[in-house]
Amino acid sequence: MSEEILREGERLDDLERNGLRLIQHPDVFCFGMDAVLLSHFTEVREGECAIDLGSGNGIIPILLSALSAGTHFTGLEIQTKICDMFERSIRLNHLENRVSAVCGDIRGAAAQFGAASFDVVTSNPPYMIGGHGLTGKNEAKMIARHEILCDLNDILQQTAKLLKPKGRCYFVHRPFRLTEILSGMHVCGIEPKRMRLVYPFVDKEPNMVLIEGMRGGKSRLSIEKPLIVYERQGEYTQEILETYGF
Amino acid sequence: MSEEILREGERLDDLERNGLRLIQHPDVFCFGMDAVLLSHFTEVREGECAIDLGSGNGIIPILLSALSAGTHFTGLEIQTKICDMFERSIRLNHLENRVSAVCGDIRGAAAQFGAASFDVVTSNPPYMIGGHGLTGKNEAKMIARHEILCDLNDILQQTAKLLKPKGRCYFVHRPFRLTEILSGMHVCGIEPKRMRLVYPFVDKEPNMVLIEGMRGGKSRLSIEKPLIVYERQGEYTQEILETYGF
Repeated sequence: MSEEILREGERLDDLERNGLRLIQHPDVFCFGMDAVLLSHFTEVREGECAIDLGSGNGIIPILLSALSAGTHFTGLEIQTKICDMFERSIRLNHLENRVSAVCGDIRGAAAQFGAASFDVVTSNPPYMIGGHGLTGKNEAKMIARHEILCDLNDILQQTAKLLKPKGRCYFVHRPFRLTEILSGMHVCGIEPKRMRLVYPFVDKEPNMVLIEGMRGGKSRLSIEKPLIVYERQGEYTQEILETYGF
Repeated sequence: MSEEILREGERLDDLERNGLRLIQHPDVFCFGMDAVLLSHFTEVREGECAIDLGSGNGIIPILLSALSAGTHFTGLEIQTKICDMFERSIRLNHLENRVSAVCGDIRGAAAQFGAASFDVVTSNPPYMIGGHGLTGKNEAKMIARHEILCDLNDILQQTAKLLKPKGRCYFVHRPFRLTEILSGMHVCGIEPKRMRLVYPFVDKEPNMVLIEGMRGGKSRLSIEKPLIVYERQGEYTQEILETYGF
């Protein structure tokens, strides 16, 4: 079966969770620890519908279908080749009733899906400011990593429109942009409610930040205990081992 | 000597740094770990002048006179009784040439000292929003802890006016107000540049945040490694032991 569903250069990875598998392509898109940590940080409750903005190969919606009690998970991805991998992973895992891959532009998401149409929005957006335009060299990865086709402000504005009142959003981003993220959320009417910093080691600066916001929430942020990735070089902490289901 | 300089109920504490001592009064004002950590987080360079907004008994200017190479340190405190303790501590430590205690209102600081008159501003402001007015019961402590006589916005606005262009400010505050702090700094033209969270234990949420901002700085925040206070219950980490000079 995996032979039929895979295209040239693709591989099939085991997500170590409910037998889920995901189609990846090392030259086009492979998920990282950020997507896994964001999926674990996100809460989707029974009866709720979630949308992931910039889904790549669908790692977040597919993982959330196993980790949460949510009813439905939509993933929006602009790159057709990557969206096609996502689509095939849905079929491979028999998730057609709970997960949908939609090819489209984040900047038009609220127009496409309608205002206040989701309980939860997630995003693992491009981290890097600007970039140097499309060089033609690994365009797919450039689009996933740099703010070429959309920026933080686009994502926050669309999130505010897509969420129902009191709906929640979950983002992973780089700590160096924290002021922009928290201010931008506040300006868009999404109040940051919960935040966790991911430190690779206990004595190193953080390289990721996880943030939960609420549309129309009150101003009060809970910062959680540090998430530390490595106990020592090459050895994950207990929390990371449990997150990955090892 | 200490008998002459102390008033009723006051005590003299050793700062464990350059022989410095500080007059405290348990019912009126005693400094906490926040002031010590902020002093260590703050950088005042040779030739620079600093002002501390809401100085209490002067712990921050007096400590900075020993920890930094700065030229002069002003402390502004609105409560006359506490400012008087600060004044006597300056004399006790023979710091009349480097430290000044000034009794006055933070909200009028820029008018009192002039715009763009300092290289560095520090503040360990009241953390708690509003409060319930002055009850008469321990009014001095209420003023130090609750936003009764000034709020975060007053402090940020005055800081922006007091700082020279590219001047730096250093604050310690509670993490639950981080969005307000970072957004408020940005709106006032002070860009957050460096931040450190203080976690009591490695597996607990942080209870303090240290932030450095720069007037007219570019948008990019460095978040530093976690500052962890206790190795285990009752036992400080090596970093805290070194900070306190034990």
